[in-house]
Amino acid sequence: MSQHAAESPAPATPVSRSFASDNWSGAHPEVIEAIVAANAGHVPAYGGDPWTARFQEVARQHFGADAEAFPVFNGTGANVLALQAALPRWGAVICARTAHINTDEAGAPEKTGGLKLFGVDTPDGKLTPELVAREAWGFGSEHRSQPGAVSISQVTELGTVYTPEEIRDLADQAHELGMVLHVDGSRLANAAAHLGTSLGALTTEVGVDLLSLGGTKNGLLGAEAIVVLRPGAASGITFLRKIDLQLASKMRFISAQLVALYEGDLWQRSAARANALAQHLADGLRSIEASGALPGLRIAQPVESNAVFVELPADVAARAQTAFAFGAWPTQPGLYRLMCAFDTTPDDIDALLGVIAG
Amino acid sequence: MSQHAAESPAPATPVSRSFASDNWSGAHPEVIEAIVAANAGHVPAYGGDPWTARFQEVARQHFGADAEAFPVFNGTGANVLALQAALPRWGAVICARTAHINTDEAGAPEKTGGLKLFGVDTPDGKLTPELVAREAWGFGSEHRSQPGAVSISQVTELGTVYTPEEIRDLADQAHELGMVLHVDGSRLANAAAHLGTSLGALTTEVGVDLLSLGGTKNGLLGAEAIVVLRPGAASGITFLRKIDLQLASKMRFISAQLVALYEGDLWQRSAARANALAQHLADGLRSIEASGALPGLRIAQPVESNAVFVELPADVAARAQTAFAFGAWPTQPGLYRLMCAFDTTPDDIDALLGVIAG
Amino acid sequence: MSQHAAESPAPATPVSRSFASDNWSGAHPEVIEAIVAANAGHVPAYGGDPWTARFQEVARQHFGADAEAFPVFNGTGANVLALQAALPRWGAVICARTAHINTDEAGAPEKTGGLKLFGVDTPDGKLTPELVAREAWGFGSEHRSQPGAVSISQVTELGTVYTPEEIRDLADQAHELGMVLHVDGSRLANAAAHLGTSLGALTTEVGVDLLSLGGTKNGLLGAEAIVVLRPGAASGITFLRKIDLQLASKMRFISAQLVALYEGDLWQRSAARANALAQHLADGLRSIEASGALPGLRIAQPVESNAVFVELPADVAARAQTAFAFGAWPTQPGLYRLMCAFDTTPDDIDALLGVIAG
Amino acid sequence: MSQHAAESPAPATPVSRSFASDNWSGAHPEVIEAIVAANAGHVPAYGGDPWTARFQEVARQHFGADAEAFPVFNGTGANVLALQAALPRWGAVICARTAHINTDEAGAPEKTGGLKLFGVDTPDGKLTPELVAREAWGFGSEHRSQPGAVSISQVTELGTVYTPEEIRDLADQAHELGMVLHVDGSRLANAAAHLGTSLGALTTEVGVDLLSLGGTKNGLLGAEAIVVLRPGAASGITFLRKIDLQLASKMRFISAQLVALYEGDLWQRSAARANALAQHLADGLRSIEASGALPGLRIAQPVESNAVFVELPADVAARAQTAFAFGAWPTQPGLYRLMCAFDTTPDDIDALLGVIAG
Repeated sequence: MSQHAAESPAPATPVSRSFASDNWSGAHPEVIEAIVAANAGHVPAYGGDPWTARFQEVARQHFGADAEAFPVFNGTGANVLALQAALPRWGAVICARTAHINTDEAGAPEKTGGLKLFGVDTPDGKLTPELVAREAWGFGSEHRSQPGAVSISQVTELGTVYTPEEIRDLADQAHELGMVLHVDGSRLANAAAHLGTSLGALTTEVGVDLLSLGGTKNGLLGAEAIVVLRPGAASGITFLRKIDLQLASKMRFISAQLVALYEGDLWQRSAARANALAQHLADGLRSIEASGALPGLRIAQPVESNAVFVELPADVAARAQTAFAFGAWPTQPGLYRLMCAFDTTPDDIDALLGVIAG
Repeated sequence: MSQHAAESPAPATPVSRSFASDNWSGAHPEVIEAIVAANAGHVPAYGGDPWTARFQEVARQHFGADAEAFPVFNGTGANVLALQAALPRWGAVICARTAHINTDEAGAPEKTGGLKLFGVDTPDGKLTPELVAREAWGFGSEHRSQPGAVSISQVTELGTVYTPEEIRDLADQAHELGMVLHVDGSRLANAAAHLGTSLGALTTEVGVDLLSLGGTKNGLLGAEAIVVLRPGAASGITFLRKIDLQLASKMRFISAQLVALYEGDLWQRSAARANALAQHLADGLRSIEASGALPGLRIAQPVESNAVFVELPADVAARAQTAFAFGAWPTQPGLYRLMCAFDTTPDDIDALLGVIAG
Repeated sequence: MSQHAAESPAPATPVSRSFASDNWSGAHPEVIEAIVAANAGHVPAYGGDPWTARFQEVARQHFGADAEAFPVFNGTGANVLALQAALPRWGAVICARTAHINTDEAGAPEKTGGLKLFGVDTPDGKLTPELVAREAWGFGSEHRSQPGAVSISQVTELGTVYTPEEIRDLADQAHELGMVLHVDGSRLANAAAHLGTSLGALTTEVGVDLLSLGGTKNGLLGAEAIVVLRPGAASGITFLRKIDLQLASKMRFISAQLVALYEGDLWQRSAARANALAQHLADGLRSIEASGALPGLRIAQPVESNAVFVELPADVAARAQTAFAFGAWPTQPGLYRLMCAFDTTPDDIDALLGVIAG
Repeated sequence: MSQHAAESPAPATPVSRSFASDNWSGAHPEVIEAIVAANAGHVPAYGGDPWTARFQEVARQHFGADAEAFPVFNGTGANVLALQAALPRWGAVICARTAHINTDEAGAPEKTGGLKLFGVDTPDGKLTPELVAREAWGFGSEHRSQPGAVSISQVTELGTVYTPEEIRDLADQAHELGMVLHVDGSRLANAAAHLGTSLGALTTEVGVDLLSLGGTKNGLLGAEAIVVLRPGAASGITFLRKIDLQLASKMRFISAQLVALYEGDLWQRSAARANALAQHLADGLRSIEASGALPGLRIAQPVESNAVFVELPADVAARAQTAFAFGAWPTQPGLYRLMCAFDTTPDDIDALLGVIAG
């Protein structure tokens, strides 16, 4: 996918701002402060520390009194572990074919998680009950890996956002069929900021069972969490976290980041800022499009988060990539992804628009 | 094992210093500074950043021009990934039965790595060619998992240290039999500090093929690395790092820690300090032992690093554990492990000795 | 898939002939004779017997002097093991979305083989270089499971057959991209009989690297083989055969079946017979279709082997299924698969046609 | 282990009788007859046939009304699948270090089953509650693979036999600790014949939860079964059987063998015969031992089944191995295993004794 360093040609001058991915950015200063504050004396390792306990409380404020949170290292770890903990050894996951778990995790769900994925084609990265139904069959047949989870990405890999109602419909269907609904929420904050909802309104309140809660792409150094929203939706997470190589010994430094992000409104501020800049970028691109100056430029997906998917003429893209790193979408020639981060500036946007306009 | 929070009874007062494990300590201030310094602008994710490049250079200074370093999240990740990258799907690892990979990683080598472990009984946690030979057989037989690696821990889980000559003998044997020698070096710095050698003198220079290079237990927030010392000793590490859920997107924050530790002499200073405090503790315990005041107190293993293994009467242990967290060794009743960290103080030691002496 | 017992409603009277799958049939009398003949005295277990040696010779007569054959228990075992032996731990397989490995093996390739599958939509179950190209990208990217094999089914799951030229094109493409070409040949004999070619003309001679050679569906009790056609295309098969639970101790009884089938022309006779009966069935169905008596009846795929895919009105299908077991195709309502076996008779066909015609 | 072809030097003349393993023998004529009889018409694949249904009844006669039987291909398959179905992903198995699952299955339990094995040293291949207790700890600790099953071999790999009381003690301990007791019964018939008990008296009646029921080593061509003795002791076996590559399409030919063996007393007759010949062999060896003619010859384990473990001078062993295939025990120099099979004859024994006596 286009956020990968390998596929984002390096610009001629050293990078300081880029549109390659929100994980090219650094950490928010408040997060660094939290790290410094957490560096105090000895505390029990492996999560027996006050910061991990505090994050548990914070998670419950967002996701309800039944929520249980498990800090982990990275997003792939959160996804693989959450799904593995929700499914038996014979379980399968229904997801969009474009889902991160299917296209960007190097087969970790299969190879480390022991999961089968059923990827479904979608126009915009979003599953619907009709699309899920294409793979939600064969229950009880020993020849078919047993669908046990539906996994959606919120924000999707194409920058689109599910409404709470859409998620509720998917949850209802999943539950009727004996499956769980998992949300890959590496950019959940961006979705909530876009919709103007709480985090719980997109998850617990609409029937989501399991959440991979993002952090790294929203200004942390590196921290994510699995949140089990419905008791019993997963089992053995503490054991599997160790087995899946996701158990931090000095967990306080992971948890302190998550507390910094989610205790107050940092998650919201940062996500809203990145979203707003994406809108600013989209507005600029639409102006160019409307001007007719650049035939071939077209915004390809609704801009509902911090991502702008745009079709660009090859020469324009090449020119822009000498100034700013950003990536080509691997499965559709001519399509590019421009990501804004919490620390992107309006000047960055204007500079990029200037380069594109030529 | 005794470093686990769960098995180290919480002391009555809030923890500030403990002897439970060197991962109960925080991060060295120089490491925090490095984190802060690394938080500058956008850089490519997944290791395409200057700090990761710099760590590569640093690793080569320690381990030779052929060394290749791969930052990862934690020690279990480093071990599983290193061994998986060194062995075919049908490979097995010969290790001490007490090895961390065999006793403390929840089966991750088997379950995530797909490895078979052959654990050998040892008196002191150290393998010898004779002990390795007990399991180094059956090459070519389809009924036997094929021994492909010998894995030793330096420092061992019992606090003992291999000399360079001992490692050389194991490497020679491994190579003769077509196997690689892997070192779980989560406390390699402590071994080098104890022996007064360089890191390379314990690894590259004596034939070690693959290293799990520690960091977290020596004052980092959370960072380890796999170092391939002999080109060709492992393959596919970049792919497997992703699959094994060990690929950091904002890798700069992992690499910056490793640079801070290994660029100068921080690794040596911190390890030597922890070792010296362990000697101070051992001296105090030996005085008590010599006084005859506490029959049943006995230092059980040579003190060669930052660990002191001591047999204690149950009531003494219980009393001491109300003041300081430390753990009982699970497989030998009456045996306790006391760990010193980079930030343990002489006052901590004296206080502990006072409590033990009663 | 429709060959599954669970999905083929049981007919009202005890089964003696069915069209559910060619594995509902028994064993050819010549195969039983071979079993009886192999039951003579003690011979080395695990393949050190004369029948296994003889099968090796037979395989070389079909597939060339470099071929190496490994008897296994079943087709899923052959597929998983062959692909696992051909790919590194980070490898992926490109296949038709309808491929048996993707739809009918319960996730065994992922869960037991540790493989990622990239399934491609096809109209007729057949891959083409253009279709393969949709997933043959991302080489070297740590985020993408590395495509290392193209796997085609010959006969396909939709009853269609690749020509030698089509296979050659796929092999050339695979080799250019550093991949291997694997053939799931559970019905390879039917393809060869249809095309009037040798088995080698569809495999070794057109660049196939690895073959799952069928037997059970062509009149054996239960025996398949992996045949490595290009030396070096796979490694560790003997070890992996044990690990994948496919190593028979009394292998003579597996090998003797394979010898019986492939030493002479039994493979050809049986497959040609089943194919001819499918043509007979198709002819009958076409007559009904032409008569206009049954609107909704339509032959849905070219009949090139022993399978006939036919669309039937629901009431007609239900009526026919009370007399003969056969299955509905799970992913397309109204589509049914009718399989002929080596022991199907013209009378069976006529009876089925009679029931359908009503 | 010594039953492997590779490690049993081939005798100078073609093998007809050997003492290498009971799987060097062929099939009992009554089993061949059953195969022939099962070759009748079309029946549903994958176990929906009358022979599989009949075997279910037969299994219940032996093992009680709650027993559920699942035919599989081979013993390693039965063991891996049974244990995998009984344990969560984080589960571990306590077994004798000499257990077949630990020493002779090429790591399949770890690599295919995802299990961790804790092997315990024993003098005679038999676990006791005291020995189990050495590894039955750490419940609830995320750092330790969770012991969830005790697995014993009946007959053990050293030819010894557990009494019903010994099994009951192990079952009670396992259940108290929340574990299941699994029996690898590849030679269960030999144990029952030795003790003069029913099969149920060694399993269901003494608390065994899960059984790998042997067949191949007692005169079948190749068939074993998992029998779940306590409802709920395992889950998902039908799915896992497919995933673990153990699902036979023409299952009737597997089940018919099992019916032939277990419906009447063939299991008992064949096992008793093999046991008696082992006693005859042991008597002869003891005579030689008593005569003092061969210093160094010593029967090394109680002869309680169809195996005789004997220490032999190297020259005597070498001489005997030119006449009869048998194997050296890999982990103890000078120790040899002599296996009798259902078709071993008194003349074979006498001939072997003659060669040994010299």
